[in-house]
Amino acid sequence: MSKVYVVGVGMSNVGRFYERSLRDLAAEALFKAIGDSGNLIPEYVLVSNMLSSQAEQENLASLIADYCGLRGSSGFKVEAACGSGGAAVLVGYSLIASGLAKAVAVVGVEKLSERTTPEVARGLAYAADADFELPYGISFSGLNALVMRYYMMKYNVKREEMSAWPVLMHENGYYNPYAHLRMRITVDDVIKSPVIADPIRLLDSCPISDGAAAVILTSEELARKYNDTPVLIAGIGNALDSTDISSRYELDTFLASKLSAERAFKLAKLSPKDVDVAELHDAYSINGVVTLEDVGFAPKGMGAKLIAQGRFRIGDKPVINPSGGLKSRGHPVGATGVYQVCEVVMQLRGDFPGVKAGGEVGLTQNIGGVGSNITTIILRR
Amino acid sequence: MSKVYVVGVGMSNVGRFYERSLRDLAAEALFKAIGDSGNLIPEYVLVSNMLSSQAEQENLASLIADYCGLRGSSGFKVEAACGSGGAAVLVGYSLIASGLAKAVAVVGVEKLSERTTPEVARGLAYAADADFELPYGISFSGLNALVMRYYMMKYNVKREEMSAWPVLMHENGYYNPYAHLRMRITVDDVIKSPVIADPIRLLDSCPISDGAAAVILTSEELARKYNDTPVLIAGIGNALDSTDISSRYELDTFLASKLSAERAFKLAKLSPKDVDVAELHDAYSINGVVTLEDVGFAPKGMGAKLIAQGRFRIGDKPVINPSGGLKSRGHPVGATGVYQVCEVVMQLRGDFPGVKAGGEVGLTQNIGGVGSNITTIILRR
Repeated sequence: MSKVYVVGVGMSNVGRFYERSLRDLAAEALFKAIGDSGNLIPEYVLVSNMLSSQAEQENLASLIADYCGLRGSSGFKVEAACGSGGAAVLVGYSLIASGLAKAVAVVGVEKLSERTTPEVARGLAYAADADFELPYGISFSGLNALVMRYYMMKYNVKREEMSAWPVLMHENGYYNPYAHLRMRITVDDVIKSPVIADPIRLLDSCPISDGAAAVILTSEELARKYNDTPVLIAGIGNALDSTDISSRYELDTFLASKLSAERAFKLAKLSPKDVDVAELHDAYSINGVVTLEDVGFAPKGMGAKLIAQGRFRIGDKPVINPSGGLKSRGHPVGATGVYQVCEVVMQLRGDFPGVKAGGEVGLTQNIGGVGSNITTIILRR
Repeated sequence: MSKVYVVGVGMSNVGRFYERSLRDLAAEALFKAIGDSGNLIPEYVLVSNMLSSQAEQENLASLIADYCGLRGSSGFKVEAACGSGGAAVLVGYSLIASGLAKAVAVVGVEKLSERTTPEVARGLAYAADADFELPYGISFSGLNALVMRYYMMKYNVKREEMSAWPVLMHENGYYNPYAHLRMRITVDDVIKSPVIADPIRLLDSCPISDGAAAVILTSEELARKYNDTPVLIAGIGNALDSTDISSRYELDTFLASKLSAERAFKLAKLSPKDVDVAELHDAYSINGVVTLEDVGFAPKGMGAKLIAQGRFRIGDKPVINPSGGLKSRGHPVGATGVYQVCEVVMQLRGDFPGVKAGGEVGLTQNIGGVGSNITTIILRR
């Protein structure tokens, strides 16, 4: 199995871009990544996206590759709800590792701003079970609220402790020039913000974002030829849990977070204590807290409490979400997992333009559904 | 690069199953394939599908894996419009070839019967360019009609000659117990059938079908341990063309058909003359005819004429679409590419329950869009 390196990263800003198209955002990220790689032209263009069908557009690999002058290349879309980006990087990894391709671009893109909030809320619920959950009228926020309520009760976690998560995210994201919401908030702001689905409040929730991010993957042979600062994908793993949450074994643990992290660490021959910097998937505060524990960075029930005590910020190991996470950087759904990889690669290279965590080993974890499809990636300088 | 074998195949019937759900169809195909493999349990469940978003369901890998008792496995959806199935097999191939997985299930599934024909027609057009084609009101049939008109004029092909394609498909499909439309038709029937988008007539068009098909892929090491009749994936290739047809270099050739076939033949170290049996993607008669030529089985402009002269049926080399093709077997959109692989594997093993082509080398070609995303697979006994 050939080793696989990230040799190029590129991101558009995250935000609401009413005047830009999906292909325009994707092209910005792809061209930046190709440039960053030293102009390595990809043979494959893999696209991660969840909701372009709402704009009556599928077949995105063809659309984006041709728009970027790569007609005749290969590609397709990879979808795993909000976890699409991580899954697409896994496909790119396997194409390089198998020798089937020498250079692969993974482009995550989402364009939601032309749709209304109810339309987007409905679209995000496609990640839940359309036959056995949605008919009861529950939303994606509602499903995550059940997890948050159960977690807070089981471990006696206070509202103030949970609020430490979004406060830290906005503190980090304030310095990230790509971030959607660059503003500082307080615990009091979180507690006084409107209820979305009790106990989830507005400031526990990520924004609805547009954005595109791209990475260029290549083999060991080409990595150093094109680039002075290749970053190794040391480990990668994906795991599935049930789509519906009613049949879960446990509600305060994401089985797929644990399994995908175990698979990635095993491949990398590393453990959670080796990680210097991580980007976790905090679509809601509760997702960040639960997976902080499931990946192995905090004991069960202690995630929010440790954040509230000041852990996981610059100077600590690991630093969590120096980008600001989904809460502040934003959540361009199908692109988020690719943003995470770009951000951690830049941290390890030392050229991330916001909060600098540095370090040698990084981790990303990208979640689809309520923990139903999760990909963990371990990167090494 | 490890060799990759197909050790299990499974299909549901193709048709309109108002009483069955998407997950139910997928489970039938997956369990049949696992049984056929000698009970090799897959680590990955890859799902190919195009239009489940119309039923507000994404995240299909989680949904299907969990429903089939494979919670904790890995997986995601692969989408390339009508070419999703072939693309998903390519991903499965790379997961095995890289050593990242020892056993992969690829499950293609589509469930359209609860939707109206206009809804499905609108959905299929997601494969076209939503910004620059659909606003003009053209349908997917209309786009293919432009190709057919141009092809018939350029090569002076008569309506009677084009009609030989669907007549042969229905002759073959009549014997396929899985086929959606098991009926014989004549050239006269085709010519007198209603116009869909001139010059495409009803009997030039595939039906709208439900169905699921699955294959189990594994490494050389496990292939013979689990199964007496493994079939090698000797070659595989994918290629992209523009999504819109207005910017094509040529309208009577599918660039992606040529390129993907060349890539697959190169990997297999074989050529078109080695192929004994092929399943081509005849969503409309014109797609079958054009790709018969682009793959290399007929000179340009001669595809329909040769079919009308009696070529490509049992006793000839290659035999084309012994399943009945999309025209008669049907076109369960995201599943079609997986059906093709199941059918050719069974032909090479000698256990296909319809028209028996036999042979040692088989080929499948699966098209997404109007030739915008094409995967070619070469199978060898």
